[in-house]
Amino acid sequence: MSERSVSTRTRRPAVSTRTAASRFFPDAETDASQRLLASALEQFATKGFHAATTRAVGEGAGMSPAAVYVHYASKTDLLFEITRIGHRSCLDAVEQALADAPDDPGERVRRFIETFAQWHAEHQMLARVSQYELNALPTRQLNRIVKLRQQFDAHLQQEFQRGVDAGVFEIEDVQGAVTAALSLCIDLARWYVPRPGLVPEQVARLYAGLVVRMVSPIRPARAA
Amino acid sequence: MSERSVSTRTRRPAVSTRTAASRFFPDAETDASQRLLASALEQFATKGFHAATTRAVGEGAGMSPAAVYVHYASKTDLLFEITRIGHRSCLDAVEQALADAPDDPGERVRRFIETFAQWHAEHQMLARVSQYELNALPTRQLNRIVKLRQQFDAHLQQEFQRGVDAGVFEIEDVQGAVTAALSLCIDLARWYVPRPGLVPEQVARLYAGLVVRMVSPIRPARAA
Repeated sequence: MSERSVSTRTRRPAVSTRTAASRFFPDAETDASQRLLASALEQFATKGFHAATTRAVGEGAGMSPAAVYVHYASKTDLLFEITRIGHRSCLDAVEQALADAPDDPGERVRRFIETFAQWHAEHQMLARVSQYELNALPTRQLNRIVKLRQQFDAHLQQEFQRGVDAGVFEIEDVQGAVTAALSLCIDLARWYVPRPGLVPEQVARLYAGLVVRMVSPIRPARAA
Repeated sequence: MSERSVSTRTRRPAVSTRTAASRFFPDAETDASQRLLASALEQFATKGFHAATTRAVGEGAGMSPAAVYVHYASKTDLLFEITRIGHRSCLDAVEQALADAPDDPGERVRRFIETFAQWHAEHQMLARVSQYELNALPTRQLNRIVKLRQQFDAHLQQEFQRGVDAGVFEIEDVQGAVTAALSLCIDLARWYVPRPGLVPEQVARLYAGLVVRMVSPIRPARAA
């Protein structure tokens, strides 16, 4: 069965891989491992982790399959490193935003969600692989990612609780609201396509507004 | 590189496939095509569309690869049929819920979101494949799915607008709020795991409450 229409549509040209490399993997140790991570990211994003081959990952980085193993012992090691960098980069952005934010609980939640949503809109390929291929990681590596993920939860839970304590938020189920708010932003990785009128900054502002509403006291609805 | 730990973790026993078949594909024409759809669903969900083979799909249905082609001309035809059935089943549920709902705009939105969220929580494997593998469909088939997807948007847009017109909702960007509300529920397919205290009905109620809040007039926040 032919899949030509699929691969021509979902494949990206090599140049975008190189751009991705410098943008998404600034802390990869060497240039070779950076090229490999970028190539693996593209393969995992377009084919899925299970369909991606070490040969294709190597080719995208200009290396033989044997050369790949000099840098990464397995395909799951590449997935782990991509996923770790993705989560770390997003967590750094959120923590910086919170460090820069004023005390007002509404403004802090707004900054958190704007940053978290914008990251997912701007790093869509990285976000997709980090979110959708997690279950392919061996338990030990998965546990390290789960620890990073718990920090997003803990931060937002703290900000929501701060607003509840200050009497400016009204939240029946704080953990449920945290999960929903994070999930809303993560799903940008699935559907979001930048377009005039909905660039990443705009979708980030829209989402921050909606999440603040989700946790704010509402006036009882009455029919007109 | 070994992927044993992955496949043992993500594979489901054959019995769940058969349950899935009768539950997810009630309108498949024959028993053989129903078994094939259930097997393909499992393969696509656990391996990804590109990694799934016709041989494995056939094996899961107790058929040779050649026998698969008697029923479906290609792997994408299986994906299209799964995706069409998924979208149709969810749309039927939402339309039934709206038909049964009273006139109150808040209650109608609540019923819409409860139904849409619960469907995604209960049909997680079907929802994942329907949502995440869409781009593997040829344009002509993709366009048919897009038409179904637009109906969810149109229905919720109408319900939101009804509330705005009645003065009970306050929505700055109706299309943005529609996209966000649907996206929130769709992402249940990624993360949701049923557990005591968060069975599908409960997450559906939680989400309906959060979405009604998203579109309700808020009291201006003030620090305590």
